[in-house]
Order: sequence, then C-alpha cells, then structure tokens
Amino acid sequence: MIRVAIIGATGYTAAESLNILLRHGATEVTCLTALPEECGHIRDIFPALAGRLDLPVESVDLETIASRADVALCCLPHKVSMQFVPKMLSAGLKVIDFSADYRLKDIAVYEKHYQKHTDPENLAHAEFGLPELFRRQIQGARLVANPGCFPTGATLAIAPLLKNGMIRTEDIIVSSVTGVSGGGKNPSHTFHFPNMNENVLPYAVGSHRHAPEMEQIASAVAGKPVTILFQPHVGPFDRGILSSVYCTPTTQLPQNQLIELYQSFYRSEPFVRVLTTPPAVKHVAHTNYCHVYPAISKGRFVCFSAIDNLVKGAAGQAVQNLNLLYGLDETLALI
Amino acid sequence: MIRVAIIGATGYTAAESLNILLRHGATEVTCLTALPEECGHIRDIFPALAGRLDLPVESVDLETIASRADVALCCLPHKVSMQFVPKMLSAGLKVIDFSADYRLKDIAVYEKHYQKHTDPENLAHAEFGLPELFRRQIQGARLVANPGCFPTGATLAIAPLLKNGMIRTEDIIVSSVTGVSGGGKNPSHTFHFPNMNENVLPYAVGSHRHAPEMEQIASAVAGKPVTILFQPHVGPFDRGILSSVYCTPTTQLPQNQLIELYQSFYRSEPFVRVLTTPPAVKHVAHTNYCHVYPAISKGRFVCFSAIDNLVKGAAGQAVQNLNLLYGLDETLALI
Amino acid sequence: MIRVAIIGATGYTAAESLNILLRHGATEVTCLTALPEECGHIRDIFPALAGRLDLPVESVDLETIASRADVALCCLPHKVSMQFVPKMLSAGLKVIDFSADYRLKDIAVYEKHYQKHTDPENLAHAEFGLPELFRRQIQGARLVANPGCFPTGATLAIAPLLKNGMIRTEDIIVSSVTGVSGGGKNPSHTFHFPNMNENVLPYAVGSHRHAPEMEQIASAVAGKPVTILFQPHVGPFDRGILSSVYCTPTTQLPQNQLIELYQSFYRSEPFVRVLTTPPAVKHVAHTNYCHVYPAISKGRFVCFSAIDNLVKGAAGQAVQNLNLLYGLDETLALI
Amino acid sequence: MIRVAIIGATGYTAAESLNILLRHGATEVTCLTALPEECGHIRDIFPALAGRLDLPVESVDLETIASRADVALCCLPHKVSMQFVPKMLSAGLKVIDFSADYRLKDIAVYEKHYQKHTDPENLAHAEFGLPELFRRQIQGARLVANPGCFPTGATLAIAPLLKNGMIRTEDIIVSSVTGVSGGGKNPSHTFHFPNMNENVLPYAVGSHRHAPEMEQIASAVAGKPVTILFQPHVGPFDRGILSSVYCTPTTQLPQNQLIELYQSFYRSEPFVRVLTTPPAVKHVAHTNYCHVYPAISKGRFVCFSAIDNLVKGAAGQAVQNLNLLYGLDETLALI
Repeated sequence: MIRVAIIGATGYTAAESLNILLRHGATEVTCLTALPEECGHIRDIFPALAGRLDLPVESVDLETIASRADVALCCLPHKVSMQFVPKMLSAGLKVIDFSADYRLKDIAVYEKHYQKHTDPENLAHAEFGLPELFRRQIQGARLVANPGCFPTGATLAIAPLLKNGMIRTEDIIVSSVTGVSGGGKNPSHTFHFPNMNENVLPYAVGSHRHAPEMEQIASAVAGKPVTILFQPHVGPFDRGILSSVYCTPTTQLPQNQLIELYQSFYRSEPFVRVLTTPPAVKHVAHTNYCHVYPAISKGRFVCFSAIDNLVKGAAGQAVQNLNLLYGLDETLALI
Repeated sequence: MIRVAIIGATGYTAAESLNILLRHGATEVTCLTALPEECGHIRDIFPALAGRLDLPVESVDLETIASRADVALCCLPHKVSMQFVPKMLSAGLKVIDFSADYRLKDIAVYEKHYQKHTDPENLAHAEFGLPELFRRQIQGARLVANPGCFPTGATLAIAPLLKNGMIRTEDIIVSSVTGVSGGGKNPSHTFHFPNMNENVLPYAVGSHRHAPEMEQIASAVAGKPVTILFQPHVGPFDRGILSSVYCTPTTQLPQNQLIELYQSFYRSEPFVRVLTTPPAVKHVAHTNYCHVYPAISKGRFVCFSAIDNLVKGAAGQAVQNLNLLYGLDETLALI
Repeated sequence: MIRVAIIGATGYTAAESLNILLRHGATEVTCLTALPEECGHIRDIFPALAGRLDLPVESVDLETIASRADVALCCLPHKVSMQFVPKMLSAGLKVIDFSADYRLKDIAVYEKHYQKHTDPENLAHAEFGLPELFRRQIQGARLVANPGCFPTGATLAIAPLLKNGMIRTEDIIVSSVTGVSGGGKNPSHTFHFPNMNENVLPYAVGSHRHAPEMEQIASAVAGKPVTILFQPHVGPFDRGILSSVYCTPTTQLPQNQLIELYQSFYRSEPFVRVLTTPPAVKHVAHTNYCHVYPAISKGRFVCFSAIDNLVKGAAGQAVQNLNLLYGLDETLALI
Repeated sequence: MIRVAIIGATGYTAAESLNILLRHGATEVTCLTALPEECGHIRDIFPALAGRLDLPVESVDLETIASRADVALCCLPHKVSMQFVPKMLSAGLKVIDFSADYRLKDIAVYEKHYQKHTDPENLAHAEFGLPELFRRQIQGARLVANPGCFPTGATLAIAPLLKNGMIRTEDIIVSSVTGVSGGGKNPSHTFHFPNMNENVLPYAVGSHRHAPEMEQIASAVAGKPVTILFQPHVGPFDRGILSSVYCTPTTQLPQNQLIELYQSFYRSEPFVRVLTTPPAVKHVAHTNYCHVYPAISKGRFVCFSAIDNLVKGAAGQAVQNLNLLYGLDETLALI
C-alpha cells in the first residue's frame, strides 16, 4: 500500500482527492494536515466523508508526516506551498503539488504574477503534471506540479493544432466559464449564494495568472512562443470548466479532417474523448475525462473542451499523476 | 410627495424597498443611511440601481434624517432597531420597522427569544403590519412592526380556518422552505455558493424565533391561544417561501367548501389569491402576492402558501403599510 | 464475474447503476436493453459514459438476455415491469426490480393506487430490498423489489422510534423535498428549466403513491398498522431527498437519549450515519449514505433524513441488494 | 389610453411584456391572442398574473384585433410573423414585431438563414428597433423590428469603437452566455431541468442566425462591412446575456480614455450604463438596462455587456420602442 498524506486537507481539492483515494485500492490515506485553527475530525470538516474515513486533520510536523507517508498531495495555496515542499522532499517524500509554485519554469514570469520564488532548486527538477502531454517526464519525477484547471482544459482543446503547426500562435483567445468551486472554500461577497446564483460574470480582466501557464504549455507543444489572451468567467454551478478557444488557421481544413486529426492525436489517451458534437460540462462532472470538440466557424477554428475543475482540473489529475509515479495503471480509481 | 428615508440601506430588504419605491409615484427617497464603514454611493453598493437612483448612503444624525424625511423604513437588525426607533418617533417621523423589536406584544416572550427590550413604551402602541388581518389598526399608526417573512406566509395559509374555529389549535405544524436571500447579505460558510447550491437543509430545529410571532398572530385570529411547531428549511434559490401547514380539523369539510371558505375570507384582498391547485414560489417571485391553497390529505387539512420573502415578506409589505399609513391606494407600486 | 443486464437502460436510474457498476470489480455489464426507438450506443445516450463503457443499447429478446446475464436490474416503469419480470425469472435470471410492481404485498392496495396486478405469483415471494430492515430476507431472494426513494428516506428516519414503540402510529407526517431527477428523464412543462429553476412546489397533494409503501414498511417495523400523511415537494436541484418527519412521542425522551437510541439501532449499518446536527442533502449526494438526525421540537419528535434519490433511493440500493444476493461485501462499489 | 394587443400571448416574451405593461399607465392591454389549442384565461397560462390581469387569451380574427387595439406586440415566431404582420398593418395597426422576419434588410441574407421572405413590401419600410442607435427612424415608424437579444447586447458593447473606427472590422469575435429563458417555453431534452442544471454548453457552432443581424447593425454603425464570429453558449440560469467581445484595435488607447470614449458615446442614453468594473448579469436582471465595460487585454480590446434577454433583449425594448412610437417618455414603465 502506498501511504498518502494530504497537506492542507480542508479545501475542496483535498476533499475531492479523498473521495477518489477512498476507491483507489493501492493507496491508503494515513495523514491529514491543516493549520491548527482548522483541525478536527475529517467527518466534521467534510460531513460527506462521515463513516467513510476515520482520520483526524492534524497540525503535525514534517517528521510525523514523513514517518507516516510515502507521497504527499500538497493542497496548499501558492507561496505557502514552496515553504513546505522542500522540506517534504528532503524528508524523502514524493510530492504532487496543487499550487502554482512549481508550474512556471521561468522564474521571472512567476515573480511577475506572484511573488519572489523561494525554492528555485526544486523548481528546476519539478515536472509539469499534464500526462497527455508530458507522461514520460512525470513517470520518473520526485516532484510533480499539478496543472491549473484552466490550463488543463484550454491546452488539451488545441494541442493537436499546436503540435501540427496549424494555427497562428500570436492571436489565440481562450474564453472560459468555470463553476464556483474553482474559487475555493472561503466565503466572500461575490460567491455568497444570493449574489452568485442566477449570475454570470467575467473576472481577472487583462491579468489572469493562468495565462502564462497556458502559454508555457502551448509553447512547449508548438515548439515556439505562443501568445494567449485568456478571459475567465464564473457561472452559477458547482463544477466544470467549458473553454472556447478561438484561433486562426494557417491552413484550411474541412471539419471531418479536423476531427480525424484530433482522434488520431488522442487515440491512446484514456481520459480524452474527441466528440463530434459540442461538449457540455455536465457530461464530465465528477469524472477525470476531458471532452474536446474542434470546429470551424467563419473561417476560424473554434475548439471546445469540458473538464471537471476539481477532478481533471485538480484531484483526479493528481491521482493520475500518482498512478504514473508509482507505475500503476494510470486509470486506477478514475473510471 | 412623501419623503422616505431608508435606515440601514445596505441589505437585501433595503434594496428591494428602493426597487419598489422607484416606481411609486407618490413618494421620494431622500435619505439613505448606514454604518460609517458601509457608506458609499448607492450605485456602488447595489449596481442594479446604477443610473436609477442618484443618492449617497450616509452616516447621518437623527436631525438630518428628520429634516429630510416624513417616514422611515427601518431596515436595521433587532436590538439595533429599538435604539434608533424611539429617537425617530420623537423627531416626528413615522416608522415602519423591519426588525423583530416591535412585533411581539408580550415582552417576556420577546426577552426569552432575543434580549432585554429597551423600548417598551413604543412597543405598547406599535401596530402589527399584516394588512390582511390588521388593516384598520395600521391606518392610524405612527409605528408599524413589519411582520417576519415566515409568519406572513404561514398565518395567511390558515387564517380562514383559525377565524372560523375549524382546526385544533394545539397541534399545528408549519414546515417551510425559504430561498437564501432570507439569510441576509453577509457571507457565511453555509451560504457560500458551492455549499448551498444543490442543497436543502433544515435549520433552527426546535427553536426558531419566528414561532412565537406566528403564535401571536394565530392566537389573535383564533381568539384563543394557538401552539405552533415551526420548522424552517432553506433551499437553493434566491427568493420565496413555500409553507406547508399541517393541521387537524375539528369538523370535516369537503375540498370544494374548503376552497369556498378561503375565497370568501380573502374576497376583498388585493394581494391574496386562493388557488385551486398547489402554489409555486416562482409564480409570486418579485411580486407582493400571496398564493394560498387549502387541501385535505388523510383526514387532515394541509394548507399551502407561497410568497416572495423580500416582497410580501418584507419590502412589499412595508410599502403596502406605507400606503395605508398615508391613505393612498394600498396597491400603489405593488401591482 | 457476475454478468449483469440493465433492462430499460435509457433512464437516470439506469445511468447511475452503470456509473456504480463500472467501479464494481465483481460484476460485468453485458447487456443493455430498451424500446426499439430508444436504442443506440450507450455513449450517445449518456455522453458521460463515453469511453467508459462500449456497449449498444439493444431491443433484444428474453433468450438473448438470459444467455448473456445472471442478474437483471429492471429499470422499467410500473405495469411494464410486471410484464417482463416473470419471463426473466422463468429464464433463470435473478431480478432486482426498480418499479412499484413488487413492493406492495397487499394486492388490493396496489390495485387501488396503480392498476390490476398481473403477476401475483411472483409478488408472493418478492423480497423488499431495504437492507437495513430486511437484510436476511434479501439474501436468499430471487426477486428483490427495490424500494421507492421517498419510502427509503422516510422510514429510515423513524425506524428506531417505530421499533421501540415510542411514537403514536396514527398521526405521522412525512414532509419531503426531492431533487428534480426524481421525476425522470422525460421533458415536461413543470420540469422545463425556466419553470423549475428558482422554484419549489408541493405535488401529489392528498394522494402520493409512495404513502402506502411507507405505511407497509413502517407497519412491519412497528408490528402494528401505521398511518402516514405523506407530502412531497420538488425543489431546484438535481439530486437528493430531505425528509422531515413529524411525530408524537408516547414517552418523552431527552435529546441525548434520542440520539443514543438511533446510534444503537444503526450501530452496524454501513450506510446509515446518525448525526448530531441537522443533515443536508449535499452531504449525501453521489453516495449511498443516509444521514439521519432525530430531534425534539415543541414536545414532538422531528426526525430528518437525507439521501441521494438516485443512489440510496435507487441504483446504489440496487447494487447493495445485488451484493447481498451474491454474498459479496455489501459495500462493494458503494464507498 | 393606447390600446395594446399581444399576438402570440403564451410565451415568455409575451408574459414579460404584460408584466411591464401592467405598470405602464399610458397603455391598456385589450387583446391577447394565441392558437386555438393554447387559449384560456391568462391567469391559467401565467399563474404569476393571477389577479393582476383579467383577460382571456383568444383565437380571434384580424378585424377583432384591429377594432380593439391601436398597436400590436407581435410575439410570433419567424415565418408565422410575416403572415400576420401585413394584415395587421393593412388594418391600421402599428406593429412591433419580435421575430426575425423584419430585421434583416438584405432579403438574400434572410433567405439564406431562414426561408423565403413573403412580405418584402413591409420589410422595406420596417425600422430596426434599437433606440440607442436608430432612435430617430423608430419615432416615425409603422412597423418596428424588435432586435434579437444577442445582437442587442453585442452591438451595444462595441458601438463606440465601431463608430469611431477604432477596431478592425474583419476579426470581431462575440462569445456570449445566455440564460435558458432565451430558448423559449417549449420543453426539450436539452432544457429538461436535470439536464440543463449544473451545465453550460456551446450551441449553434458555426451557424447562429443572430450573426448576420449583428453584422448588419455593426456595419451600419461602422459605415463599412463588418464580419463577426458569433458563438453562443447557454448556462444554468433564467435570465440574462453576458457578451464578451474580442476585437483588435487599429489604434492603441489607454484604459481610462477607452472608458471616457464610452461614457461620451452613451452620455444621453437612459438605459446604457458604462461601468468601470466588469458587469454581471444579475445586476441587470428584471431591468431594461445594458451594462457595458470596455477593457484592454494582451493588446486587444475586450468589451463586455450584460442585459436581461427578456427585457432589454425583448419585451422591455419593445415597450421602449412603443414609447418612442407614441412620443411618450422613452423610459415609461421601464425604470
């Protein structure tokens, strides 16, 4: 049994990780941590886990974690994460980190959007945990940077086009709608039910932190610099991200060949389905699947993808990465 | 023009009052107040009012309010309300108070469920602002206690039976479901969108503060003491209260006569509709109407009512009371 | 591997059954049937299953089903079900039936609420599939009548009181709110999104077909006839039933002893959790759990339960029954 | 009193028109029509109007309509509309038509997206009813083509840029999310509550009929041909359209000057508010307002607008047009 610790066990991605790991079979959750003021029995923090997991959420030191676990799912926010991750790695744990701290390879870009990076050493060997594009690198990693939810959906929507050099790389527009769980567990005016219900709104206009992450992945796939205008919106539902990606063809292609290109690109992928009709977030909710659909509109490509932000966009992808790290069936607990 | 001040102008009931008063014709909103830290232009506090009302929300003294207004809609919470109301009355304003502070005639009952009552003097002459049952008293009032949302819906659902002595008064059960706006504007864990969406839950089990208010009204209508078990629930929608009232007949009555009894009782009421099929909260949303439907099930009466908690349950009823206070058409701005 | 056929594979309960069985491990879904006009590949009927199950939904004869499967989950509507079930039993299949056709032991009661019963022979040996109350009988059954969603939640909420003779059996009131998936997959005016969203309404006033089923179970538990007034409501969410059961104590009991009584009664049950605070349907959504909470209000017992109508109220309970039929771990695929 | 007939009075836009006209003051609704099989009292068709409007919905001939009304709000679907409109005009009625039949000035474009146009004569003099851009023409019209909901929101979002020649006219992308009421009252699989709730999806990929209407308006404002890629999405809420318009500047402009340009352009408009932060559909729900917000992102302009599809996108705009037709205060019943 692989022993798993969840670091920062009181948020939505931690809850979803537990939900998946309870069905895993090859792992055992042995340690849950949080800040002292957030501790308590997991059943009181997540009543949905009552009777399914009998563990306290504790404020414990690194030694205790290292003695109890082989791998840590680190669900801390950015900045906090890079304070803990080096210590966990030193203690011999493998780490799958949910924060942004190890995703951006270019420190200058990270520091522009976040703050000073305090762990460049481990950043250097962290692997980006999007298995569909970087599977081989993940398999041997000690530290996996679990991707952001928006970059996961957006880049899977256009990877076949980028890889084959079929779109201009300087004017890609990603327009996404996410469910509210993407905003985390902390109550706020915007996400107070009577304010968010029956509402839809754009946010982070001109400046979303996920854009450089998208550009990094897209550039790696395209083999040259890619520029992305990313505009997120939030809508009145719990789970899911629908991304609509507008891009300019460098060569025209009929619809059926476009579909075939995608089917060929994703042929062996267990979690990507190429549809022949538009996707819907409800069809991927509570699953690790990404549904993609490329289409042509007014001479452009419009490529759609749908994922569950908490599963393929976070906890499910983390377990997919964990399975890869340990040489297990990549789909374990995820189908 | 009747000049209206809104005291505590940053909550949902204040916003709804403004929304209605903007269509009123015989009133002018002249003064909006709040705590210093909540002040600002009304357009920034309620973007839905942008361009419709050009007024600041200010932290002003009583003299200013009294110089600008003839009547105050007091949207403060209980306890705070009874600190301000006596001063407003002394300054010559009429007051329609939204809090619980002037609703319960029996101070002992009030103090059991809330705290020490600091204004028994004005409580003595406050009139209970449910026009369908106490219209005459309201007309001459200086201080109107605007009813709670649950008591409004629940008592209108059974008033015809109580008045005619047709049900036992010791075992009435009121089971209600309210929309989330009833919980107010302050963000909380329970009402955080991802927690409240796709959810329904009971609360205040065994102890809701609205029960004594229901019992007071029901007893007044019945002419003898009435006991009510009240159980509220909250569901994933913005507006509306559906009350299902279970009671025991003292005499059996066929369905058609039950309907006729209700139709007769509410014949002259502009805002109560007796339906011949079950009500739905959506049909009364954004209106001042109360839809009622009495039925028979397993030898008992099951009486339903639907209201919009922010309109007939608060702001609409307040304007209805304001219209009565000033001898205007009772339905002004409300149809 | 136990080979499973789903009969009537195009509805919500069939989809949920498939979702669970895909994680089962000891079963294999081998046959999906529907009316000819509803056939097609399962991925087109339920896009959420795309890539997870490669099976057509077919209109096949009994011989084919019997040759491919050991047990059938029969998701047909009442009346249709009792036309197929006898043939499946004759062909040697075990059957777990989701319809009402084999739930009511008293044919007169069935025929009053539905229509003439055409299979009294198999009704005689059908076992009622509520494991928490009838586990032993289920284990040896050939035909299991999978319970209705409302009766499951409502009877689990009060079984400890009924068993111990602690409530009056003639005035129990069950007031429930269900999510819309309980109404099935067929589009209708009432469940058209713009009509049902932001709405809550009562239905089946005076006459819900689930009441006699509740009374049958409750009477079996109590050992004497029980009368139940059942009033369902539907609210704007997908999944879940919250039942609030109002009943009259025959003996008073303090809150802590009430909780202890429940904890003792359900001590060994894997899927019933006794809470010490009110339940919420969101905490049981997508799980086979039933959360119960008994309380005292105005001298009465008010007992709450929350289940997912599609899981514990249908597909999950069916798999729980399947596990029992085959001597498997009762919780397989359900935690 | 201006006498108003509603033709096709059983849909959502008709209901919203009635809701607004009941508060109008200068009009009286005198005639409601529908197909024979949809007739009945308005209170049974729209329970929300119970007690507010005492009129039957009738299947009546043109003479009756013409004898009772001065102006018709024609809420029929396209194709049906152009069969009735010529007769109503001949009978002397003014007509505000909600369908697409009189919106597209180029018959070839109409016939490409719809079907053969059977009333080119009246199309020739129909005025496009978007008052913010074509107020003067509307004032003298006999027939007003009430705009589509998407074109209303999208073109108001970019009109100031088009008018001032500040964006390229060949690569405008309009990405919109609408509430479900935009899909009309007829139940369907897609809009069945359990399918649409917790969902968001794109539709009409590559081919939405509103695109040529947008292009027509935009070209009129720009004074040259404009090409628009329009992609609609539908989300789980009742009302509102959020449009995010991506376009390429021909000259760079700082954010504050962009805002000033919009403020200047819309200075005299009663129903357009230029915001300095992103809009939200909830802030315009149940109002005739359009909130716009232009911004800069990655060197492009991203312009947002929010409207209520049933009000500014249909019924409210129709009443605004009616007010213009009759020389009334344009905002009557709309603030």
